[in-house]
Amino acid sequence: MNQLIAPEGLANVVVADTEIGDVRGDEGFYHYREHSAIDLARTRSFEEVWYLFVHGALPDAHQLTQFRNTTAQLRPLPDELAGLLRASALLGDGRDTLAGLRTVLSAAGPALGVAPLWESDADSIRHDSMRAAAMTPTILAALHRIRSGEDPVEPDPELPVAANWLYQLTGRRAPDEHVRAVEQYLIATIDHGFNASTFTARVIASTGADVHAAVCGALGAFSGPLHGGAPDRALDSLDEIARHGDATAWAREQIADRRRIMGFGHAVYRTVDPRSELLREIALGLGGPTVERAVEVERQVVDVLREAHPDQPRYANVEFYAGVVMDACGVPRSMFTPTFAVSRVVGWCANIAEQARSRKIIRPRARYVGPAPR
Amino acid sequence: MNQLIAPEGLANVVVADTEIGDVRGDEGFYHYREHSAIDLARTRSFEEVWYLFVHGALPDAHQLTQFRNTTAQLRPLPDELAGLLRASALLGDGRDTLAGLRTVLSAAGPALGVAPLWESDADSIRHDSMRAAAMTPTILAALHRIRSGEDPVEPDPELPVAANWLYQLTGRRAPDEHVRAVEQYLIATIDHGFNASTFTARVIASTGADVHAAVCGALGAFSGPLHGGAPDRALDSLDEIARHGDATAWAREQIADRRRIMGFGHAVYRTVDPRSELLREIALGLGGPTVERAVEVERQVVDVLREAHPDQPRYANVEFYAGVVMDACGVPRSMFTPTFAVSRVVGWCANIAEQARSRKIIRPRARYVGPAPR
Repeated sequence: MNQLIAPEGLANVVVADTEIGDVRGDEGFYHYREHSAIDLARTRSFEEVWYLFVHGALPDAHQLTQFRNTTAQLRPLPDELAGLLRASALLGDGRDTLAGLRTVLSAAGPALGVAPLWESDADSIRHDSMRAAAMTPTILAALHRIRSGEDPVEPDPELPVAANWLYQLTGRRAPDEHVRAVEQYLIATIDHGFNASTFTARVIASTGADVHAAVCGALGAFSGPLHGGAPDRALDSLDEIARHGDATAWAREQIADRRRIMGFGHAVYRTVDPRSELLREIALGLGGPTVERAVEVERQVVDVLREAHPDQPRYANVEFYAGVVMDACGVPRSMFTPTFAVSRVVGWCANIAEQARSRKIIRPRARYVGPAPR
Repeated sequence: MNQLIAPEGLANVVVADTEIGDVRGDEGFYHYREHSAIDLARTRSFEEVWYLFVHGALPDAHQLTQFRNTTAQLRPLPDELAGLLRASALLGDGRDTLAGLRTVLSAAGPALGVAPLWESDADSIRHDSMRAAAMTPTILAALHRIRSGEDPVEPDPELPVAANWLYQLTGRRAPDEHVRAVEQYLIATIDHGFNASTFTARVIASTGADVHAAVCGALGAFSGPLHGGAPDRALDSLDEIARHGDATAWAREQIADRRRIMGFGHAVYRTVDPRSELLREIALGLGGPTVERAVEVERQVVDVLREAHPDQPRYANVEFYAGVVMDACGVPRSMFTPTFAVSRVVGWCANIAEQARSRKIIRPRARYVGPAPR
């Protein structure tokens, strides 16, 4: 049999065709369908872009109203899962909110009678995907509140996704500027090429398993330290630099000790990460001492990185300003990565639905390099 | 950037090096490390082969005793998960036992404080993997019994894996010939190349996430109808043939209607599946009318398939006789695929540990084929 030996980690290996979007690493540009993702984040609501992922085109006014109502109705968790949700919330520590989401979504699959993709038509897959994505913020906010000794807040169907997320998290209506900042962050992070979690979702979907099976797998990959995009780590670095006092000296020490500087560099972007530019702008709009400090630290760290790797400049990535923005909007640090999951689940679901249409299992090979069988 | 366009589904694309084992589809041969898997199933205990997967070599007598004791101690589920286990058991229908296992293993990650692979040394990864695999039969048997209105049976640390599995499932000590038949089935199904569930486990492990995250993802892929290896479907076909009355005519009708015949054909084997040969032999040893019927049906269906696809003969695969063997050993039909999971989790864990050593994320690319961005 003809075998093709792929480079380790499948780097630059095209494993599927997609109509969902693309990342142009050399240009510092990414898009959802035929729209610049950054333009969408600047000009559209989260629901409009979610609709784009589900239906392949932006909605008209009537379609948008209907979609808002439908998805808002899908937010509550079935009552029979309340006990399991509470039990999950009390396991592990604050880092385990994603694991709690995985547990509850895993249980929600059989509770809701979600059918395998292989036995579902396009409408059912769409419905199951929209419900999984709509329930995600409800579950995450409830896990956070139970863990903090507070009661979960019921979703408010009158509020759009971003406003409702902050409301369910804090129990208070957030100011408009915070809602819009978080909404723009959510829009900008729905999808971003074939990262490991998106690919995991597609491998599972390729077996014909159900939407919840695929999302649980994606969440597992998403929880990996190498997956990237953990905005709390970048903010931890900012704190460390504040204690240190000198960002340039701190960055030089990290490089000398061969430690990775969180919040800088990206696997695909060879130029500025367009998400960090948008988020810097949003952060500057919100203002405050943390924002001013972050801008100054970014400048110094990028300079040090350029000095250390003149041929491979590294820039602030999405996680650097994401943490700054969420902090300014009152999102607790342990909920930064879960907030990322609120948007990314929409991207996973679109990938799951697309993979389901191909009806071809993803089944690569390994090369045996151990001692020969006797 | 130089891109490599892989064939759809990554067919015949080598994505990793492995020392765990290999499948030689043309020869009808597969092996674990340097041992023929079928020879191991004929001559070894499940614990010996499990040890081979964990440590890379077969154990001596002392190592085996120690390994048996250690893994037997790891079987019980932490008490704090009892409520969550019960809640999971009561969701969905009998097909959802794997989803229940996924939910409980997902919760067990934070409950046991399992650390990301990226922050664990080889010993901790080994321990976490052994515990996940040791707990799997306990969880599955408990889910089955709660669903059947019975109390879970505590694991018996004196019993080896196969005997304990039948004991926890039925509440009774199984006869030796049933224990040995199931043990041989379990050994023969620990690993089998880079199927979709094993690959899923490795993609998740490549992000540095924890063992439970990777196993939960693998379980999702394993639950997919295209993953194959669902011995209950093959037995359902046998029942259907019995009702029909004529296996040859039935098989011809399936082919005419373009329906897949469950239990025949394999993605990798171009000759007989060595697992089905072993299992046929085991089934004949157990005897009984179902076994006799199965042998006759196999002969007739293979003839019809040869007639229909003279260039691509298809043979009975692992799921055909697996169902027959498990049925003869008193395993309820809804627990056939979960029994498969009892062994396969050992293979996933070995793959997770091996992937963790490479410390390189699996991140392929997709090719955008939609309308160009405006």
